[in-house]
Amino acid sequence: MSEFVTVAVDAMGGDNGAKEMVKGAVLATKENETVHVLLCGNQDVVEQELSQYEYDAERITVVPTTEEVSCDASPVMEIQKKKDSSMVVALKKVKEGSADAFVSAGSSGAILVGGQVIVGRMKGVERAPLAPVIPNMKGVSLLIDSGANMDSKPHQLLQFAKMGSIYMENVVGIPNPRVAIVNIGMEEAKGNQLVKETYPLLKECEDINFIGSVEPRDIPYGACDVIVCDAFVGNVILKLSEGLAGALVKMIKAEVMTSTRTKIGGVLVKPALKGVMSKFDTAEYGGAPLLGLKGLVVKIHGTATHAEMKNAILQCVDFTEQKINDKIQEKIQNQVQ
Amino acid sequence: MSEFVTVAVDAMGGDNGAKEMVKGAVLATKENETVHVLLCGNQDVVEQELSQYEYDAERITVVPTTEEVSCDASPVMEIQKKKDSSMVVALKKVKEGSADAFVSAGSSGAILVGGQVIVGRMKGVERAPLAPVIPNMKGVSLLIDSGANMDSKPHQLLQFAKMGSIYMENVVGIPNPRVAIVNIGMEEAKGNQLVKETYPLLKECEDINFIGSVEPRDIPYGACDVIVCDAFVGNVILKLSEGLAGALVKMIKAEVMTSTRTKIGGVLVKPALKGVMSKFDTAEYGGAPLLGLKGLVVKIHGTATHAEMKNAILQCVDFTEQKINDKIQEKIQNQVQ
Repeated sequence: MSEFVTVAVDAMGGDNGAKEMVKGAVLATKENETVHVLLCGNQDVVEQELSQYEYDAERITVVPTTEEVSCDASPVMEIQKKKDSSMVVALKKVKEGSADAFVSAGSSGAILVGGQVIVGRMKGVERAPLAPVIPNMKGVSLLIDSGANMDSKPHQLLQFAKMGSIYMENVVGIPNPRVAIVNIGMEEAKGNQLVKETYPLLKECEDINFIGSVEPRDIPYGACDVIVCDAFVGNVILKLSEGLAGALVKMIKAEVMTSTRTKIGGVLVKPALKGVMSKFDTAEYGGAPLLGLKGLVVKIHGTATHAEMKNAILQCVDFTEQKINDKIQEKIQNQVQ
Repeated sequence: MSEFVTVAVDAMGGDNGAKEMVKGAVLATKENETVHVLLCGNQDVVEQELSQYEYDAERITVVPTTEEVSCDASPVMEIQKKKDSSMVVALKKVKEGSADAFVSAGSSGAILVGGQVIVGRMKGVERAPLAPVIPNMKGVSLLIDSGANMDSKPHQLLQFAKMGSIYMENVVGIPNPRVAIVNIGMEEAKGNQLVKETYPLLKECEDINFIGSVEPRDIPYGACDVIVCDAFVGNVILKLSEGLAGALVKMIKAEVMTSTRTKIGGVLVKPALKGVMSKFDTAEYGGAPLLGLKGLVVKIHGTATHAEMKNAILQCVDFTEQKINDKIQEKIQNQVQ
């Protein structure tokens, strides 16, 4: 490992393909001088995109690959069979230690499988949770696990809480982050079996600033910094938030178009509406890390453009420079002992 | 049971107390001539409120009670100990058959406990789910179970689907309602253990129009009519929707106030914003029924005013006249046999 932070990018992943992925990578190298990007993908396509930019050739390396992981096929099969796909090759760079981190806008399922199977979990980590930041009225919270591991156990949720806390403090920059578990009421006795069993573990843990339960209605108001939940519930929170915000804005727009008076008003308030919606623009927040692996694996949206790729790469630099994995290893080992 | 539909109302429940509950009851008797209301509560307080209105004295009966169920104490203890509370007395009217239905804005926990313990479940019904309608872009969907039974089993979710389907068709008036299970992806193989085991039961059931999985992001767009899920997930969906809609409107308002231009626009679009938010005004939709009991138990919001109480009472009339419980009993017996 050099003084550079090396990020292996799946240049072929996502709905927008190499064009946006390559642009994001170039912009990241311009914004941060320690970034070295390995652009894994079809050589002709990637070099064609690169030819449009001036860039530091010492910090962008093309790694030619011949295959692409499909979003429509079984993630497990894709990862097993497509050994020369841009995703698998990029993940292997992390596994081998020739890259610190991996970013892809490709198949979410394949990233989750590939992260665990190719890069592998750190010693003592039982499951690697997906932990995106989500916007709230005051800033952002970390949602962990947002969809990686179905039917997790209480002590696994405790690991998620520790990992999320370290990430939130050191990468997102929230000192002593408030950790809470998603629950249907505030009292300790509330909840389903999983929550009832997890609550005391979180309460007893000295490594985190546990503040108790968080009710879903308080999440958008920023009631806590690290939102701990099982992957099914986390995925519901993530996807419902996206869907509801989009539907509300569509409904407001439709309603505004019903009269001349409101149409004029609509033109005037447009900047305000845009201001609010930009807070919900997930591109601003980089990608969702899969924590607890021997290296950093970051999933960005399938619809990601260059901005999200750029921010995700810069996020990898913070993660690596802050030695997040060393910190996680330390806390998890304490638990294992 | 007479030709009237008799609704036992907990006149002391909720944040707004007897004033709003009594007003709602009076308005319901004026709007529908088959309604007979039993106003259970402190006699002086209820009669004082009633004295402000002209009403048909044959269709409003005061049932004097001396206690009130608290929202702050254990629901089980409250129901067991406060035998002469407005809630327990009203529930007993349903149990004895002297009322068809019960409505309360009191402690949610106590209503859930009291409904199951005092009114009791119908034969073959294992668990009584709470099933409010929630708004979407096209109309409403039924969310079942939204918080009554933690850690339900697959065949219990199948019962929820049947009950919800009957309610949606006959009370809300959606013919052949589309039933879907909340999931984190559309494929049958997706989901946690509960969803994977429930999916085939729903798919095989001939009593419902099962359309597969619904992803949370599609719920606000009205992707299905009956949303089946376990109570923890349902409660997250319900509460997060309420919280997020409120937070977004607050953020838009705050952003609108930042410049003169947007302030003027804000005044002009106000009717449009109000139009959208009225769709999210839960008072419009009556209350949340607890289905599968020997009689109808309806929970309205703690913050309910007369409008919500009135609509909930009218909803009880539809429920009773449509013989929903006979229809549920038939479908559940089919399953048991």
